[in-house]
Amino acid sequence: MPKYGFRQHFEGWEEFKKRPIGERLPVFFKDGRIFDVLFSQQFDRTFLDSLYDLTNRIRRIAKSREGARWLHDLHGPRRAMLYFVQPSTRTFLSFLNACHILGFYTSEIRDPQTSSEIKGESPEDSIRTFSSYVDLIVMRHPQAGFAEKTAWLLNIYSDRPVPLINAGSGSDQHPTQALLDVYTLQRSFEQRGGIEGKVIALVGDLKRGRTARSLSYLMKNYPGVKLLYAAPPGFQIGEDIKEFLSGQNIPFEEHDSLASVLSTADAIYMTRIQDEHDERGESQSQYEEFCLRKQDLARMKSDAIIMHPLPRRGEIDVAVDKDPRAMYWRQERNGMWTRAALISTIFGSDEEIRTQGQRFLV
Amino acid sequence: MPKYGFRQHFEGWEEFKKRPIGERLPVFFKDGRIFDVLFSQQFDRTFLDSLYDLTNRIRRIAKSREGARWLHDLHGPRRAMLYFVQPSTRTFLSFLNACHILGFYTSEIRDPQTSSEIKGESPEDSIRTFSSYVDLIVMRHPQAGFAEKTAWLLNIYSDRPVPLINAGSGSDQHPTQALLDVYTLQRSFEQRGGIEGKVIALVGDLKRGRTARSLSYLMKNYPGVKLLYAAPPGFQIGEDIKEFLSGQNIPFEEHDSLASVLSTADAIYMTRIQDEHDERGESQSQYEEFCLRKQDLARMKSDAIIMHPLPRRGEIDVAVDKDPRAMYWRQERNGMWTRAALISTIFGSDEEIRTQGQRFLV
Amino acid sequence: MPKYGFRQHFEGWEEFKKRPIGERLPVFFKDGRIFDVLFSQQFDRTFLDSLYDLTNRIRRIAKSREGARWLHDLHGPRRAMLYFVQPSTRTFLSFLNACHILGFYTSEIRDPQTSSEIKGESPEDSIRTFSSYVDLIVMRHPQAGFAEKTAWLLNIYSDRPVPLINAGSGSDQHPTQALLDVYTLQRSFEQRGGIEGKVIALVGDLKRGRTARSLSYLMKNYPGVKLLYAAPPGFQIGEDIKEFLSGQNIPFEEHDSLASVLSTADAIYMTRIQDEHDERGESQSQYEEFCLRKQDLARMKSDAIIMHPLPRRGEIDVAVDKDPRAMYWRQERNGMWTRAALISTIFGSDEEIRTQGQRFLV
Repeated sequence: MPKYGFRQHFEGWEEFKKRPIGERLPVFFKDGRIFDVLFSQQFDRTFLDSLYDLTNRIRRIAKSREGARWLHDLHGPRRAMLYFVQPSTRTFLSFLNACHILGFYTSEIRDPQTSSEIKGESPEDSIRTFSSYVDLIVMRHPQAGFAEKTAWLLNIYSDRPVPLINAGSGSDQHPTQALLDVYTLQRSFEQRGGIEGKVIALVGDLKRGRTARSLSYLMKNYPGVKLLYAAPPGFQIGEDIKEFLSGQNIPFEEHDSLASVLSTADAIYMTRIQDEHDERGESQSQYEEFCLRKQDLARMKSDAIIMHPLPRRGEIDVAVDKDPRAMYWRQERNGMWTRAALISTIFGSDEEIRTQGQRFLV
Repeated sequence: MPKYGFRQHFEGWEEFKKRPIGERLPVFFKDGRIFDVLFSQQFDRTFLDSLYDLTNRIRRIAKSREGARWLHDLHGPRRAMLYFVQPSTRTFLSFLNACHILGFYTSEIRDPQTSSEIKGESPEDSIRTFSSYVDLIVMRHPQAGFAEKTAWLLNIYSDRPVPLINAGSGSDQHPTQALLDVYTLQRSFEQRGGIEGKVIALVGDLKRGRTARSLSYLMKNYPGVKLLYAAPPGFQIGEDIKEFLSGQNIPFEEHDSLASVLSTADAIYMTRIQDEHDERGESQSQYEEFCLRKQDLARMKSDAIIMHPLPRRGEIDVAVDKDPRAMYWRQERNGMWTRAALISTIFGSDEEIRTQGQRFLV
Repeated sequence: MPKYGFRQHFEGWEEFKKRPIGERLPVFFKDGRIFDVLFSQQFDRTFLDSLYDLTNRIRRIAKSREGARWLHDLHGPRRAMLYFVQPSTRTFLSFLNACHILGFYTSEIRDPQTSSEIKGESPEDSIRTFSSYVDLIVMRHPQAGFAEKTAWLLNIYSDRPVPLINAGSGSDQHPTQALLDVYTLQRSFEQRGGIEGKVIALVGDLKRGRTARSLSYLMKNYPGVKLLYAAPPGFQIGEDIKEFLSGQNIPFEEHDSLASVLSTADAIYMTRIQDEHDERGESQSQYEEFCLRKQDLARMKSDAIIMHPLPRRGEIDVAVDKDPRAMYWRQERNGMWTRAALISTIFGSDEEIRTQGQRFLV
């Protein structure tokens, strides 16, 4: 007898997941609106611009006590479940507080050991159980594709599917990180003609970090952007991304030091060398070259910005924090607002925020 | 010096717990209303019918945003503590979300190791501490009788007792599971004359599972019900239950396979073989006979229902899920509504829901 | 390369922390109002009296459903983070529920292992991250001075500092415990001329327990108080406290048994022998002499009070609980109200509670 009887049904899923992404996407939209947020491929320019505007509005409305209360009462009382079975503090707290801003009560599963899985329940049954109590599921899972499978399952099998947001699945997708990165670029360049035509340097472990990959992908929406990839040998951006860029006629260059992109970039996106994936400490020796020091600041453009998905270790000197070009702390907080805007969009309150919410923007 | 000085007082408790249940019950009622929910023996037909009606109302009121907000504001802001020191996801989340529906903020103790017990505090002092901060305690504890002892203690010793709901104590009582099971039967048979006169089959590990026991007990409230117990040898329902049924003139039969009850039952209540209690895998070999497969569906009555307290492993094939008679996912969600109705009853808002809440039922 | 680049900046902090406390305090006030609550040295008589009045008001307003709702809506919706990386149940729950009374959503870090620290992030970066999502941080940390360093860092470096409350840092400070102790004394002696002129006995492990130390310090605000320290040899109050008392002309006596202070004290503050710090069980043998038994009650003043910070083990017999002089359970609940009043003060709603809130005090 199989442990998870559910597997018998996976012919359906196995077939579904083999389809090209364009054919899979419609399953995750509902009434012409995004329902499940799973891949950055779901975001086009119209969506990004609309979310940018909505994020700005929510952020400003929440500044006053009256505005904060209005936003809260507009969405709440609702209930969200955060299913985070992979360690994460930043993304977890960012979503949790985004939910709270919108008046969602939250429940958490952070350790699958406390779950019924110890009684032999299938993960699919567990998620279906969670979905039966709440209005929204936010999920971080170590297994690539698990979020998509779960969303598909709820949409196909449950008579009461709830929206699901992928908060990071394995090494493949972390779509809301991409959204907050785009938001931060757009906000920083608002007075300078937008993201279009800017030179964006991505620095560090570009092979294993998924943020650089998603961001590269989304740049197709911004004509004239040029990408500079600065990485140690063996850590360069993947061939698949380079092929994608060539196909889209997006210019890019490969560099082997931070120094060589420092003075030309409008945005420098630093990333962490993920040496927790190392087998024999192979990252360490090449690390120094890809750290941003206080003395590097003088060589940067005066209106450039410095980003980082955080957490950082040594790759940005703390002395850099006080420079007005350091945008990473704001970028982190942008994550909370972007996620609040995304949830608003899913629940269809974007229109009301644009119209009724106008009165809080004085 | 004793570690827990409290024990000196337990002459009182030791004497109290020896009394027959009928003499103990009044301690857990207050102003003619249920205060602590500890045993299924507290539920009579009037209570069950009233809770059924209230659950239906709350479930329907919560469907609209206005109704959900009204329910929330009617009860909140209040505060509940969920003290779950035995693993449980389903019951925990069900209660947590029931609390959130009613506007209760929640705090949790899920691991007694994080509690002051490591500093040598007695469990009784710990619970009294928790009670001093909140308006309601929901408790799951591995020790039979612990919930009753705690409720007794708070009622006798504290100058500010708060209601306590037993969410499962040891192998003896899980009264809210019984409530949601009865609710599900009642709702399913609403158009067919109610639970009265139905044939209900209970299948699986009837010896160790407490759900089958509680449900059997409550059937005394529904004249004409016939019970069919289908269990492997050595896992049949206990002698005490059989004596109880005989005393109440409730007809029952014992069967040794699912097959022999399949075609006559109006409700088939499947339960999990609890092989985590096994010493040498004695359950495994007899397991196959007590699983419901897709091919079994054809032999069932066309209007029968399939229930399961969940989590399941192999005892119901996932292919059964799509059959309209499969009621277990709805049963699970009923748990949340039943618990919300129970809390409403304890806090005395049932009357207001029946009168003022009427306007949301359109 | 240093693991935490932040350390390069700590010349600033290292210099700051060497200054006398009087020079450090202004950093933690904002607009003439307390902002970060770090040391009992921040509380003068005006502050204590004002907080006493506010706590009484909040406690009474919250008694009615309308009052509770008003308090909730006055402060909420806001968001607090409880960063408790040292085991604590009582203080944690007390703060959590104080937050909930005031309509704060809460998020928790209780195990630093679930945090990004495993990816090598500095604690300073982690706290700055948390601060970016919430309106208030409550922190318990095993390291003396960590709360002050963090508050200093946020105030100096962040462009959006949030208030921080020290909920216990190492063995040095637990300022909100001192506040609730003073509140309990003041409330108990309200009809008897206040704390002034009372004899207060502190009993037990006065060397290692920080409550006795903070409370002694705050007694300088109440003229005429006499302190009796009853402790086993080797566990007496520290020389620094004795010097402080002498400098302030506060009379005190040292005793070697509970018996010798029993009949003269107006308040007996029992504390736990902290034998978890023992190396070879050295506390055990001397323990019996410092326990309060039922038979001791007859020797106490008829209007004396018994306090204890809890948790207790054997040092107060449970039989004492029913004596009207036993104040420790109420003291515990006072903690929640005192903390709610403290948060109200930080967020500047104290004036509104005194004026608008008056209507709920009937």
